Formats: sequence, C-alpha cells, structure tokens
Amino acid sequence: MSEPSDGRPLTYAGAGVSIDAQDRALAEIKRLARATFTPGVLSEVGSFGGLFALEPDNPSGTVLVASADGVGTKLRVAQMAGVHDTVGEDLVNHCVNDILVEGARPLFFLDYLATGRLEPGVAARVVEGIARACRGKGCALLGGETAEMPGFYPPGEYDLAGFIVGACRRDRLLRREEVCPGDALVALPSTGLHTNGYSLARKIFFEVLGLRPDSELPGLGRTVAEVLLAVHRSYLAAVSPLLDGGLVRSAAHITGGGIPDNLLRALSAGVAAEIFLDSWDEPPLFRLIREKGRVPEDDMRRTFNLGVGIVLVVAEEHTGEVLERLVPHGPGWVIGRTVQGSGVHFLEHRG
Amino acid sequence: MSEPSDGRPLTYAGAGVSIDAQDRALAEIKRLARATFTPGVLSEVGSFGGLFALEPDNPSGTVLVASADGVGTKLRVAQMAGVHDTVGEDLVNHCVNDILVEGARPLFFLDYLATGRLEPGVAARVVEGIARACRGKGCALLGGETAEMPGFYPPGEYDLAGFIVGACRRDRLLRREEVCPGDALVALPSTGLHTNGYSLARKIFFEVLGLRPDSELPGLGRTVAEVLLAVHRSYLAAVSPLLDGGLVRSAAHITGGGIPDNLLRALSAGVAAEIFLDSWDEPPLFRLIREKGRVPEDDMRRTFNLGVGIVLVVAEEHTGEVLERLVPHGPGWVIGRTVQGSGVHFLEHRG
Repeated sequence: MSEPSDGRPLTYAGAGVSIDAQDRALAEIKRLARATFTPGVLSEVGSFGGLFALEPDNPSGTVLVASADGVGTKLRVAQMAGVHDTVGEDLVNHCVNDILVEGARPLFFLDYLATGRLEPGVAARVVEGIARACRGKGCALLGGETAEMPGFYPPGEYDLAGFIVGACRRDRLLRREEVCPGDALVALPSTGLHTNGYSLARKIFFEVLGLRPDSELPGLGRTVAEVLLAVHRSYLAAVSPLLDGGLVRSAAHITGGGIPDNLLRALSAGVAAEIFLDSWDEPPLFRLIREKGRVPEDDMRRTFNLGVGIVLVVAEEHTGEVLERLVPHGPGWVIGRTVQGSGVHFLEHRG
Repeated sequence: MSEPSDGRPLTYAGAGVSIDAQDRALAEIKRLARATFTPGVLSEVGSFGGLFALEPDNPSGTVLVASADGVGTKLRVAQMAGVHDTVGEDLVNHCVNDILVEGARPLFFLDYLATGRLEPGVAARVVEGIARACRGKGCALLGGETAEMPGFYPPGEYDLAGFIVGACRRDRLLRREEVCPGDALVALPSTGLHTNGYSLARKIFFEVLGLRPDSELPGLGRTVAEVLLAVHRSYLAAVSPLLDGGLVRSAAHITGGGIPDNLLRALSAGVAAEIFLDSWDEPPLFRLIREKGRVPEDDMRRTFNLGVGIVLVVAEEHTGEVLERLVPHGPGWVIGRTVQGSGVHFLEHRG
C-alpha cells in the first residue's frame, strides 16, 4: 500500500484487491468443493449461506445454514484506533445477515482469533463484542479458537474470522426461484461501510487525504474512526417477523460485490433487477469516497453498499405491509423492481 | 523471533507463546461466552467440540458438535517450503478429531483463507487439500471465505482456519463422567507434530540448527519440510467403529497442551491418569527437538504430542477387543490406566 497518490482515480483493484482473480480462484474452489458434497448439501458454494439438510428426504425437515466470514481490513482501522470491542459485533452481524437472507435464524457462532502475541485485554474486548452481538439474537457463542502465532502477526495486529450455524425448516427457506417479474425490491439502510471496501476507503482517508483515525471528517462532524468503525447492522430483528409472515420471496445481503453482485444471487433465471437511483439519498460518506478518490461509478457500486444493507424481494401485493412492519426498526424503502431479463441495472429514476 | 541462540534451554513461552496468558484470556472469554448460552448448549467453552442440542428436551435427539481450529505456524513451514496442498488436510483432520473425541462424525466443513493478495494457484492448492481430507469422511466442504486483505499479510503468506460441524445422538455422546478408576488408556500414534509446537520447533530447526526446509534431518533420512509437514492424522476411520461398538468411554485429542492438558479434559472428577513412559518409543523427531533445543521435559510434554495422537479411555474388559480392532488401521497400545486421584502423572514404567 505504498503507491503515491498522483491524482489517478482509485479503484478496488488498484488498492490491491483483484475481484477477477478472486472469481477465477472461486470457480476452481467450487469445483473442488462440489466433489465433497454429500446428500445433505442443498446449496452451491457461493450462496450467502451453505445449506445442509439433516434429513435429506424430509421436505419439511431441519436445514442447517452455515456461513464463514471475516472482518477484512476494517480490522486495521480498529487496530489503528485502538478500538477492539466492535469488530466482533461486525463479524457476528455479518454472519447473521448471511444466513438470514437464506431464511435462517442463528443457533450458534464460533470465532477464530489469531495474533502474534496474545494481549489478554485485547482478546477479551474482541470477544466482548462477539458476545454482545450474540446475546439477544438466540445465538450461542459455542466455542472458538484463540491462536497465538509468534512471528506471524506483528505486535498489535490480529485477524478475526467467524462461523455461524443457523436453522430453517426446509419448506421455509427463501428460494430465489420464486422471484417473478413485477416484484418490489425493498431496501434497508446500512450504517456505513459495514465490512466491505476498507482497502479502498483506508487508501483514500489515510493516504490520499492524509487523515488519522481521530481526524474529524470534513462535513460529517464525526471522526474517521467513528465513521469507519460504525457497526455492521444486523437485520435479524427487522426481517425475522417478515420471514415469519411469509412476506419475503428472496433477499440479498449487500457485501463485497455491492448491490449488483449480491442482488444477482437473489434473482431467478430470466428475471432482472432495476434499481432506481433517485429512490434514496446516498450517505455523505460514500460521496466523500467517490469524490476524494475519484472512484469510477462502477467501482463504487461493486465495492460499497452505497447505504443499502440488505435488499428484500417482495411480491407487489405485500409491499405496503412490509414497509409498514419495517418502520419500528427504521424505515425501508422501495429501491427498485424486478422485470423480465437478466442482470442488475441502475436507472436514474423510476421508468 | 530474532532472539539469538545462546545455548539456553528453549521453552514454548520463550518461543513467544504464553500458555498462562492464554489461560487467563480463556477464563474471561468463557465468562463472556457463557452469558450467550441458550437452552441448546450442552458444553462449556474449552471442550474439544462445542455441543448444541437441536431438541434440548429429547434425550436421544441430535446433538450438533462444532469446532473451530487453525493450523498455527505450521503454515509458515508450508509457506517456506512452497507446499500448499497439505495444510488443508491438517486443518480438516484436526477438526475431525476434535469432534470425534466427543463421539461425533462430521457433517460439513467451512474454511477461512486470508491473504494479502490472492494467488489463485495457491488458494486452489490449499482448498485441494481441504477437499481431499473431506472426501471419504462424509464431510461436505459446504462453503468458506477467501479474504484478500492487502497490506495485512505479506506477499506469499496466508492464514487458514476451519470450522466443522458434526452430529451425534445425544445418548451416544462420549461422557467423561463415565470414566472409572481401572480403565485402560489406549493410545494411537501420531504422524509427527500434527499441528502443535511449531513455534518452538521452527526456532530449533531454523534458528538454532540453521537448517532450511530442504535440509536433510540428521539421522532421519528425510528433509526438514517432509518431517515438519507430515499430515495431521485423522482418527475417524480407526475410532469410528469403536464408537459404533460402544467400546470407548471418553477420548482426548492430543493437541496444544500435550498429553497432560488434553487427557485431563477426558477424565471424570476423582480420577487420575497414569502414563507409562516405557510403553512406547518416542519418535526420533521429538528426541531431536528435546536435545537440540535443550527443552525441559515439562515443556516437551505440554508442547508436543510425543508420538501420541489420540488417547481413548476404555473399560478394562474391552481393551483386548479395542486393540484388536485397531490393528488394520495401525496398531494402538495401552499407554496407561486410570486410578483414583486427580491429574495426569507420568511413570517411568508400569507400577
């Protein structure tokens, strides 16, 4: 990360993350994984959560939904700022959302915390955040691994990964196959970057703008650390009642790949999504990143959530009820609709 | 890891791993985790695997057994040697053994692979090892996270963690409470260091002895890399039939903490273990480490498996049958017995 800032536009690939190389590796990984599949496996690798039927022949049996995630380089911001008790919340909430969009509610969580030399206070703060996020969600922190790996991580640095297992009755799983043209796309707001785009954001804030974690962000009235460490929101409380009510057809957690890549994973074949760009005010943080980094629009859309944390695909006739039920959790809005076709398309305004 | 070798004895703590600091952090972590427990949780954090009952009121219902693990600094040896297709096997087998000693067989596995810049060939080799170890064990590679974290890991380095979920009927779980004085302790051989003690072993081989991965190990006829990268053995095939036959009371996977700390976790209150040091020939690798590193005996025992991969606690009357059934998988041996008392004690020979 030593490239000088020379006024060139910044892209995610330029910040060191190659989405294409990731895609190629992912294809090979999928092939290898597929060869291990047993009759219980219902999902392809690359879904938001992996689906495993405990009773493969029972159409209403329990399906376990599992996901593994990391926090990415948001960790670096936390470590620069000395704030260790929120990254665990980020991690749990990320995992919770990943299985929620499959229709599952959490059962338990395990963490992996790796560091060079264990600073017990730091490890406890990290786990404190994990435990705080687990409580109240019916999610037990069932175990984990705290690995001390001398010489592997520099002093003060650590990596953190999480694994969640949830459950869903098989006939209550969300099924992208049920998405039809004419469905509404209902968005719920994100709280910030959540856990994606930090390599690029760090480059812009700390290298291009030369800010420090405690610098006040121009025009936002909050420090860089406060804005960048805003906790990844859990949508469990908001979305769970909608799942109970059978009001959601499919859903996308907006993480790496942004709205285009993630929403695509929630659509059936032959169905496209139209996103109305005039349906929401992008939070100032994203405008700042776009302007100061001169980030091309396509990179913005594939790197950041742009203020959208989750998108629900809802039958047109249920849209009113869904929006109403979301109000107590912070309102959602209709961000677009499905049409015949393929892909995710951004429209300046509703056609 | 830049301490010079000055002839002082080497200990695990001196190599940078503080077991006491880990213990303190673990106590705080356990307290935090306990506050998240839901009615399904049957285990304490710190068991080999976390136990979660899907139907908490059903005495013969399905219990999920989960474990999270890393490969530790064995990864550094793999990265030095450019051998990337065995660490995944280490990881899966480690996880499989952790739930096996609770009585569970694997259902699925997820991995977390974190690197600075993804080298697709390397990622695929790592996953190839994971998939190879999953196949044939009824363990689906259900998903995972491949995280590209620029600036977080130096070029060529990566960290790897794994997460396994298995299942066991609740009334078939191994229960340490059933261990009685007079039981036999049956050991199965390890294939090498498995995944523990690498910080100390690397210090001895690469710093004290100044060897390289391709150096031939004095007296062993194999290279340092071959010896240190020997794959962590899975005991699933050997132990599974014994579990089916109800021939095992309790079991310990010998990982960090060695025979003393791990066997302790498999004993009931009021029961001690006696280990007969003359019951096996310690593999030459461990003798080499002890001598060249001048490692105190207590550190040897708490850091390394000393040639013992797993210990089964078996009722005296079943010992013959257990030993016989193990033969096709490579013989086991009676390494000791249980007596009234507490702790794990090493005896020079059977009393």
